[in-house]
Amino acid sequence: MHSSILHAQQVVLGLEKFSVRHIVISPGSRNAPLTLGLNHNPFFKCYSIVDERCAAHVALGMAQRLREPVAVLCTSGSALLNYYPAVAEAYYSEIPLIVLSADRPPHKVDIGDGQTIRQKNVYQDHILHEATLEMIDSLSGEQELEKNQRIISESIKICREEQGPVHINIPFEEPLYNLVNQAQVRISIPDYKPDQSNQDFSELNEAWSIANRKLVLISTADPDDITEEQIDTLIKDSSVLVMTEVSGNLVHEQVVWGIDSLIAPIEQNEKMLEKWRPELVLSIGGMIVSKKIKQQLRAIDGLKHFHLGPWRATDTFFCLKNSYKVHPSVWIDQLPEPKIESNYQSLWLQHFKSCMQKKMDYLEQIPWSDFKVFSQLFKSLPDNIVLQLGNSSTIRYAQLFKMNASHDIYCNRGTSGIDGSTSTAAGSAMVADRQVIFVTGDVSFFYDSNALWNNYLPNDFKIILINNSGGGIFRILPGHQDTEVFDTYFETQHQLTAVHLSKMFGFGYREVGEESAFAKALQEFLLDNTAPQILEIFTPGALNDRILLDYFKFLK
Amino acid sequence: MHSSILHAQQVVLGLEKFSVRHIVISPGSRNAPLTLGLNHNPFFKCYSIVDERCAAHVALGMAQRLREPVAVLCTSGSALLNYYPAVAEAYYSEIPLIVLSADRPPHKVDIGDGQTIRQKNVYQDHILHEATLEMIDSLSGEQELEKNQRIISESIKICREEQGPVHINIPFEEPLYNLVNQAQVRISIPDYKPDQSNQDFSELNEAWSIANRKLVLISTADPDDITEEQIDTLIKDSSVLVMTEVSGNLVHEQVVWGIDSLIAPIEQNEKMLEKWRPELVLSIGGMIVSKKIKQQLRAIDGLKHFHLGPWRATDTFFCLKNSYKVHPSVWIDQLPEPKIESNYQSLWLQHFKSCMQKKMDYLEQIPWSDFKVFSQLFKSLPDNIVLQLGNSSTIRYAQLFKMNASHDIYCNRGTSGIDGSTSTAAGSAMVADRQVIFVTGDVSFFYDSNALWNNYLPNDFKIILINNSGGGIFRILPGHQDTEVFDTYFETQHQLTAVHLSKMFGFGYREVGEESAFAKALQEFLLDNTAPQILEIFTPGALNDRILLDYFKFLK
Repeated sequence: MHSSILHAQQVVLGLEKFSVRHIVISPGSRNAPLTLGLNHNPFFKCYSIVDERCAAHVALGMAQRLREPVAVLCTSGSALLNYYPAVAEAYYSEIPLIVLSADRPPHKVDIGDGQTIRQKNVYQDHILHEATLEMIDSLSGEQELEKNQRIISESIKICREEQGPVHINIPFEEPLYNLVNQAQVRISIPDYKPDQSNQDFSELNEAWSIANRKLVLISTADPDDITEEQIDTLIKDSSVLVMTEVSGNLVHEQVVWGIDSLIAPIEQNEKMLEKWRPELVLSIGGMIVSKKIKQQLRAIDGLKHFHLGPWRATDTFFCLKNSYKVHPSVWIDQLPEPKIESNYQSLWLQHFKSCMQKKMDYLEQIPWSDFKVFSQLFKSLPDNIVLQLGNSSTIRYAQLFKMNASHDIYCNRGTSGIDGSTSTAAGSAMVADRQVIFVTGDVSFFYDSNALWNNYLPNDFKIILINNSGGGIFRILPGHQDTEVFDTYFETQHQLTAVHLSKMFGFGYREVGEESAFAKALQEFLLDNTAPQILEIFTPGALNDRILLDYFKFLK
Repeated sequence: MHSSILHAQQVVLGLEKFSVRHIVISPGSRNAPLTLGLNHNPFFKCYSIVDERCAAHVALGMAQRLREPVAVLCTSGSALLNYYPAVAEAYYSEIPLIVLSADRPPHKVDIGDGQTIRQKNVYQDHILHEATLEMIDSLSGEQELEKNQRIISESIKICREEQGPVHINIPFEEPLYNLVNQAQVRISIPDYKPDQSNQDFSELNEAWSIANRKLVLISTADPDDITEEQIDTLIKDSSVLVMTEVSGNLVHEQVVWGIDSLIAPIEQNEKMLEKWRPELVLSIGGMIVSKKIKQQLRAIDGLKHFHLGPWRATDTFFCLKNSYKVHPSVWIDQLPEPKIESNYQSLWLQHFKSCMQKKMDYLEQIPWSDFKVFSQLFKSLPDNIVLQLGNSSTIRYAQLFKMNASHDIYCNRGTSGIDGSTSTAAGSAMVADRQVIFVTGDVSFFYDSNALWNNYLPNDFKIILINNSGGGIFRILPGHQDTEVFDTYFETQHQLTAVHLSKMFGFGYREVGEESAFAKALQEFLLDNTAPQILEIFTPGALNDRILLDYFKFLK
């Protein structure tokens, strides 16, 4: 069965032809021709998510995990504005997302009809491609059919090849619900022309061959994008120091995996900084989480920055010399034997090791707090999971701890918003081949509480909520004060808990608020797969910031 | 105390100078200079609302009630994208909203920093005015200071005069939290030049003098925009029929206040339609709710449409001849004595009266259902309240019943979205001089559940939630089927209730699911002002559509 509307048929056939299987649909009437067409075709897996802000993040989480385009479909009007936060996240995180918005016919825009806005190009600067389909009726000619086919295939092609969001706006006139048995249109796929990327490495190689202090900075990347073997090759050169972020999905014994733990204690120590400052930095991966390293690298005079890999190159340190849009191995494999002798690598690996030793001492002396919870938590999670991290405090704390090499780690670092992390984790769980565990702070969790309104979550989906009664992250930013204004507008103090939401949406729920009960609660929580579960861990809000700031002092 | 950042001082002083008193703030760090500056000035009333989608709707609800600009302030990144649904609503509903977004400095956009997007002109087609301030430091000259002053006053002026949303984007560099005792800048207000509107009524007057069937259609308008006296003048002319919508805030004995109840039974009756079809329609007010009347008026050959009043004129029926942006009384007061003799008005008032008589009979025979609930509800609410109506089913049902003349009625009909109705009602209650009662359907309510995360609600704020376990409205649209696809993607069936949310957010809660208990439950609910209250009324989802469709048949 197909919608009787020909350009709805075109969209459905186009998605099928390009193997876009997963479609997240928010209810509505205007989008009925597509909802019906997609649901009547067994190729597609359709999901109904009511809140569009959640729906788009669910699709984002799916596409992030699958690394292939996922479509999200809504009705006309403000519906598609609610997609925007996820569209911007997809844009900056380079995740393939296809936005399908139903629209009124062009002549019914701006005449005062309900649920009607100016939908064309609504995501303007945060979309790779946007187009509005022609309405096709029996009177339309070949030209309109061909134009639509071109729009559909070009959009999906760009989404797949350039990895990011595209938007197809689709006007429909009533009647919207009529069906026919056979599609009356066909659709074909254009040739695939791979991007011709810069593979002339001479500028990078030249700079690389003479720099005595080379920093390789590995930021947000998918699991297996960067391998241990590649790192082995890089660190044969004693003048190369590799520093990684949690979101880089790389665990290796000979790298500095805790950037802030290394940088923070020497921030004011000019002598140490001088020894650390690289002459060349090679960034591999997407968005960089650590503010501290950005700040330090920006301050280096004469630094040379190169960017390697399929991720968008941004001039993060204001000194980008060149970028190479090839898989990192292409460059690494052609590296000559290293010639420079240097203690750069060994010095900082040794220093980092001693920092981590001090951390052990520190951990033993601190009370129940976010710091302690995160430390115990990351050690206790099972192997081989997808670990989804919330933004703000969660990802920043995670950067302080060594990750489990078997974990696939994700965090929405494109816009670093707190607005859709739970929904993204939910989307990930809906398509994941592994168990998904989501760790989040409280403000982000309550912000996206409608993420729990989801009938497709596997029973082993787990949410670990660290509730310190407010956005404690702001306490560690410079300039905070202990005032009512601060509590209200920066820390966002609240008394909310997740217990009521868990009842509302049928989640299992456990809570724990002290160290002695933590291990047992966590184990019971991890073993309970009767339904999706929430573990709410309460920590003392006012203590957390002091413990974190003292940690960096302790390392000095 | 002021922020030490000079252009933050300019914004704060500009808002004060223009008497923009109410500021809804979402927490963040980048917006700290404004948060601090505003909170340290006793002129302002600041409110902290965490979820930006809610925050913007709260501000919208305030501005809608106060009819004066309200500001909403957020941090950088995806935060301001979450404002977009409310911005579009403000644009189409012509509500004065000032969006203040903190931004990174221009040279830090697109270099991979966190919480950074391309904020300039992000609301492009749905904003009256947009500008980005210059960053002012001690090195900046008079020119930058003057440019900012111009932007600030122009934006607020446009917001106030043209009644709609404006956006001021404000880049800030760290440090963000420093304060000074005295403002170092001043700000002045430009002259006010009133809009020169079209007051040459000759085209309308000529058409008016010769048309034998004149329809005055009163759609969305604020309380007291249109008065009983004005209607008295209009209906002196027997060839004038006045039809009003619920959102028009006008109750008068000699008007057709139930458009759909009049139109639906004669939709297929060509003879009756012929008698009803006006030669001229004069629209007064904003967006029109009734689809049926739009459909009928669009189908009339040779219809002449004029629009009167301060609301934006749209060519809703594809035959707009002219529009007059003056208060309706300006035109009504100059009307000559009517000369045409016609039975147009009396015929249809009589017909409508008999329809309403039939409705009484119908109501007596139907079981417990949405139709019955709405009928009893609107009769039982106290006088002199602000009545906020949810979108979709609520406003459509409300159109079938006679409203209480002492009620001030609002509904977000700009984009007709379900996404922020509860937050809008909350905002209304936060500034209202009267009790606010909000009536909503379940899908809209659960969509905007974070609206309850609000520390500023008065204890007499009431939510009446009609829960039919899904978007029953879609059942009455043409083409629905009783299938699983329909239940999932159109009706959105669910088993949610508000009881858990009420516990989570400290609302009182009562539920009722049968007619015999309804009156008592409603009375107890209305009398309980110990905390904001929710009354959840359960109705049978599958029955509702049949009862509504049968109602229109019964009237035939």
